Amino acid sequence: MALYPFVEEAAASAEVRAVYEDIKATRKVDWINNFWKALANHPESLRRTWESLKQIMAPGALDSRTKEMLYLAVSISNGCDYCTVSHTAAARKAGMTDSMLHELIAVVGMANETNRVVQAYRVEPDEKLIEAAKGPKG
Amino acid sequence: MALYPFVEEAAASAEVRAVYEDIKATRKVDWINNFWKALANHPESLRRTWESLKQIMAPGALDSRTKEMLYLAVSISNGCDYCTVSHTAAARKAGMTDSMLHELIAVVGMANETNRVVQAYRVEPDEKLIEAAKGPKG
Amino acid sequence: MALYPFVEEAAASAEVRAVYEDIKATRKVDWINNFWKALANHPESLRRTWESLKQIMAPGALDSRTKEMLYLAVSISNGCDYCTVSHTAAARKAGMTDSMLHELIAVVGMANETNRVVQAYRVEPDEKLIEAAKGPKG
Amino acid sequence: MALYPFVEEAAASAEVRAVYEDIKATRKVDWINNFWKALANHPESLRRTWESLKQIMAPGALDSRTKEMLYLAVSISNGCDYCTVSHTAAARKAGMTDSMLHELIAVVGMANETNRVVQAYRVEPDEKLIEAAKGPKG
Amino acid sequence: MALYPFVEEAAASAEVRAVYEDIKATRKVDWINNFWKALANHPESLRRTWESLKQIMAPGALDSRTKEMLYLAVSISNGCDYCTVSHTAAARKAGMTDSMLHELIAVVGMANETNRVVQAYRVEPDEKLIEAAKGPKG
Amino acid sequence: MALYPFVEEAAASAEVRAVYEDIKATRKVDWINNFWKALANHPESLRRTWESLKQIMAPGALDSRTKEMLYLAVSISNGCDYCTVSHTAAARKAGMTDSMLHELIAVVGMANETNRVVQAYRVEPDEKLIEAAKGPKG
Repeated sequence: MALYPFVEEAAASAEVRAVYEDIKATRKVDWINNFWKALANHPESLRRTWESLKQIMAPGALDSRTKEMLYLAVSISNGCDYCTVSHTAAARKAGMTDSMLHELIAVVGMANETNRVVQAYRVEPDEKLIEAAKGPKG
Repeated sequence: MALYPFVEEAAASAEVRAVYEDIKATRKVDWINNFWKALANHPESLRRTWESLKQIMAPGALDSRTKEMLYLAVSISNGCDYCTVSHTAAARKAGMTDSMLHELIAVVGMANETNRVVQAYRVEPDEKLIEAAKGPKG
Repeated sequence: MALYPFVEEAAASAEVRAVYEDIKATRKVDWINNFWKALANHPESLRRTWESLKQIMAPGALDSRTKEMLYLAVSISNGCDYCTVSHTAAARKAGMTDSMLHELIAVVGMANETNRVVQAYRVEPDEKLIEAAKGPKG
Repeated sequence: MALYPFVEEAAASAEVRAVYEDIKATRKVDWINNFWKALANHPESLRRTWESLKQIMAPGALDSRTKEMLYLAVSISNGCDYCTVSHTAAARKAGMTDSMLHELIAVVGMANETNRVVQAYRVEPDEKLIEAAKGPKG
Repeated sequence: MALYPFVEEAAASAEVRAVYEDIKATRKVDWINNFWKALANHPESLRRTWESLKQIMAPGALDSRTKEMLYLAVSISNGCDYCTVSHTAAARKAGMTDSMLHELIAVVGMANETNRVVQAYRVEPDEKLIEAAKGPKG
Repeated sequence: MALYPFVEEAAASAEVRAVYEDIKATRKVDWINNFWKALANHPESLRRTWESLKQIMAPGALDSRTKEMLYLAVSISNGCDYCTVSHTAAARKAGMTDSMLHELIAVVGMANETNRVVQAYRVEPDEKLIEAAKGPKG
């Protein structure tokens, strides 16, 4: 069904295989999921996307679990089925429990509701909120 | 600019005032932001929305900071300006730092990028990912 | 702020003016709103868009008020400010009251909420619902 | 395929069953559709969502058919398949005919078209439209 | 699975058949794809949509390949599977190569990423950019 | 109004300045637009985003003008005002004329219309289209 045949590990070029190996080592997994095998039809996109993702998703000020849940929240909101499945899996692996997932879904639903209600009433941000959003040194 | 005049506290009906007081007590703030003052033109919507929001955003399996960041991530992704401002402010109040915010924005951007790439390549979820998404007892 | 200067009636070509006159006659208004004056920088788009809109929004199986409310619901959901304002105005002119508007906004918010919840839980349509959606002769 | 197994009526807890019974009584149906059976994995979300939906979709200033058509218009626009099916079914049950559905779809398509054209031309709302949107007492 | 049965050529009314013939002649194809056969359940929508599409997609200042790629970019971004498939096919027919497609997908992904980042940082357009967007005579 | 103060060239760190210089050299411009000055509050995001953008937008199988128009089409469709302005400007610089822009807008509008119509009718991709989308060697 995919637009291009998946590039399996055994058939991958050296360039693609190097990315695959880095994905497996970084994520501590022993297989490559379909997203990367589809992207590998354009090695340049494969490498760039993986390098960006690796940098962004590495633990920093936010831990991995929080980052995966943010990714999942956006994917649900966008209606992307593959992304919802893969980041539900990734967030679980990073420690998200069932209760956390149910609460995450409720927050995503609520945010989508109020986002539209705000738009309909054409509410402009309060000056106080703008200042508070900027933070102490903003 | 808003569609309806804001219902200020001083001019609010008893029904609206009761909700306002609950908002202030629950959030430990001493003023009401414009979203609620716009909603108050329809007291039924004001009450229902507040009751839902209060329940959903209360700390549970997820702490308040994580919930506010999830709300913010969806609001950014939806392009809702008011919501982005108000939940940036709320997430800061709940402990989000500048570094966390920058990382959150990077994750939201990345999720939006890969969501569309997946769609373009028509990638279907791997069976292994579907199982992993279901979790241990799914 | 608009990308192109508005094409005012006095300065319009005969081709543009003909569309303007038809808009005013069809809608029983005596002025042209900015959307059409922006579109008039490309007379072909002006004519085609107006012809489509006129046909679609004419009362048929659905009355004008219902059609304008549907248009408004989509515009709110898309976060289009101009469209929200113009179709709130149009729906009011067609008979939408304040109470109807508040209820419309509540429905739009709720639909956006549940749409994401369904996506998150990956719910597939029930066979019974698919049949019911097709209707008696579907 | 769903993320969680559906909670069937026979296996439901008393809390879940109470909501199911209310859904069936309110909607005058004798079965529960999958959305609720998925939500029932988190009884708190089930109850809150149903209570909100029941309140919002009850006939008020807008009749049930109009409300269901608004819900459907948003669901189509969001690309939510389950929601499109279930609210097409619900709107039909509330009296929407084939002709009404075809016209609804045309309005939804048109709204999505002009929403983007407005954005591209960066048209700001006319003062007259803003006033008209506010209504007589706004 | 479709909401309505497809209207096959052999069973089509004279009105529908006339549109089908025009589609085949204009596009130099010998079959009708499902989109039109679904739309034909409402001949008025079939005719109007085809007339608009024919006018918009005809080569003008932009050649057919560029137009099809723009259509595809939007369809990917909206997550519409049918549209992504049909306009990938159409763009290929108009000369889009594999390399072009991979680059198109990368641009679509990148645009979705930066669109959200801009929103999060609340960046307002530079005056210089606004002027440059208006062009020499704007 | 922006969330963070812009990082002006004169006040930029060496790391940020290096990116700014590369932006100016690559784009043959003598100033930095606000997007980059906002991003510079998080130098890591500035560098990563610029490196990705530079790679993706460089002429390849698609020329710069086509890439900028694709970027613009997505930005319009997403309702991102800053992005619409900046990529209208960029596409003009790369050779997009007024006529091309008007046609681009018409295509974007039409794509948004039919995307929703397809969803409403629940049309599944034709096998023939899926094959054609895959291309000769897919």
